[in-house]
Amino acid sequence: MQLVYKGKTKDVYSLENGNYLLKFKDDVTGENGVFDPGANSVGLSIEGVGRAGLELSQFFFEKIHQAGISTHFVNANLDEQTMEVKPAKVFGKGLEVICRQKAVGSFFRRYGDYIEEASDLPQYVEFTIKDDDRQDPPITKEGLVVLNILSAEQVDRTIELTRQITTIVSDELKAHGLDLYDIKFEFGTLKDSDEVVLIDEISGGNMRVYKDGQYIEPLKLHELLFKN
Amino acid sequence: MQLVYKGKTKDVYSLENGNYLLKFKDDVTGENGVFDPGANSVGLSIEGVGRAGLELSQFFFEKIHQAGISTHFVNANLDEQTMEVKPAKVFGKGLEVICRQKAVGSFFRRYGDYIEEASDLPQYVEFTIKDDDRQDPPITKEGLVVLNILSAEQVDRTIELTRQITTIVSDELKAHGLDLYDIKFEFGTLKDSDEVVLIDEISGGNMRVYKDGQYIEPLKLHELLFKN
Repeated sequence: MQLVYKGKTKDVYSLENGNYLLKFKDDVTGENGVFDPGANSVGLSIEGVGRAGLELSQFFFEKIHQAGISTHFVNANLDEQTMEVKPAKVFGKGLEVICRQKAVGSFFRRYGDYIEEASDLPQYVEFTIKDDDRQDPPITKEGLVVLNILSAEQVDRTIELTRQITTIVSDELKAHGLDLYDIKFEFGTLKDSDEVVLIDEISGGNMRVYKDGQYIEPLKLHELLFKN
Repeated sequence: MQLVYKGKTKDVYSLENGNYLLKFKDDVTGENGVFDPGANSVGLSIEGVGRAGLELSQFFFEKIHQAGISTHFVNANLDEQTMEVKPAKVFGKGLEVICRQKAVGSFFRRYGDYIEEASDLPQYVEFTIKDDDRQDPPITKEGLVVLNILSAEQVDRTIELTRQITTIVSDELKAHGLDLYDIKFEFGTLKDSDEVVLIDEISGGNMRVYKDGQYIEPLKLHELLFKN
């Protein structure tokens, strides 16, 4: 097994069977020591956050598979903090897809003149290009096609999958008395295929979850889901 | 006639006949003394730019009317530097619509990792919300509908009109050996109507025009169009 990439919150190793191993770290994105799922840099380390993120990812990937939706997920090893995934190609140099059920975060910062904070949104889907030098610029559906990052069909499929997966995650959280305000995904295509699949992780670091209007930190989210 | 609004590049007066009078000033948007049609603040004053902008606006509004497309334009008085317009309602608190035929300006700054500067774009239409405090945030078609700024039908009509008017302006410039790289419009609805119409102005300050790959400043553009 060989290290092929050191990421902000995960390292990636190649396996002899052709798959990859994602090693979850205890680093989370944020700024000035405050966790922010929308931030672009690693802001702080929280002990146990890697394992918690992996357990949440495993849990949600399995729910998504049960719903008949393909992903890159193969299996997880909680003690090693690793997740085995199929080889996948990201769109362009990486694309983030955000699904918003409530107006918070950067959506509210941008459009606060037109909407009250935490108002309902109809699973509003946004795209941002992963580009640290350019602060992850937002891009429209048409822009993705113009820049040859996705085909028009892949854009539509990505939006459809985003909403389906958001509903699965949201319903699961709701069963625990929790509200999913927004969630961020990455999609790609599996090797030798054009099919759009969910890749990356599905953890507390990728979503904003609230309980009775109070934001729930990633580790607390893990505790509420698995330790009750 | 009464002053009702002092804008960055124009002042607005109400007329007794119910129309408005736009007084074109010699201020243009830019930063650090350099003209930039994409900038949000007034960067410099250029003598004659108000009159030149008005003459260009009059010229293009008349071309657009000849093509059977409605606008708010009634008439212009070059000596007074004023344009009479019908009363119109902006969308939300003001919306800018950009049509891009070449990848320059903020488009290239955002997506330079995916496209060469000045590459062709297929009349790519973008929207930004006029909000100085939030640096005129970009917004998607779906976002405009979610925030109740435009209906879905008005979005489609606005895009259609934007491309039609861009073609009219672009063809006119091409006849003078000039290339329109991008152009910025404002749309609204006339009083007691839901019809989307072009409002504001159509001058050198709202577009990027090039000749043989060299950017043409607003006053030079006026000179090339009217003094040959």
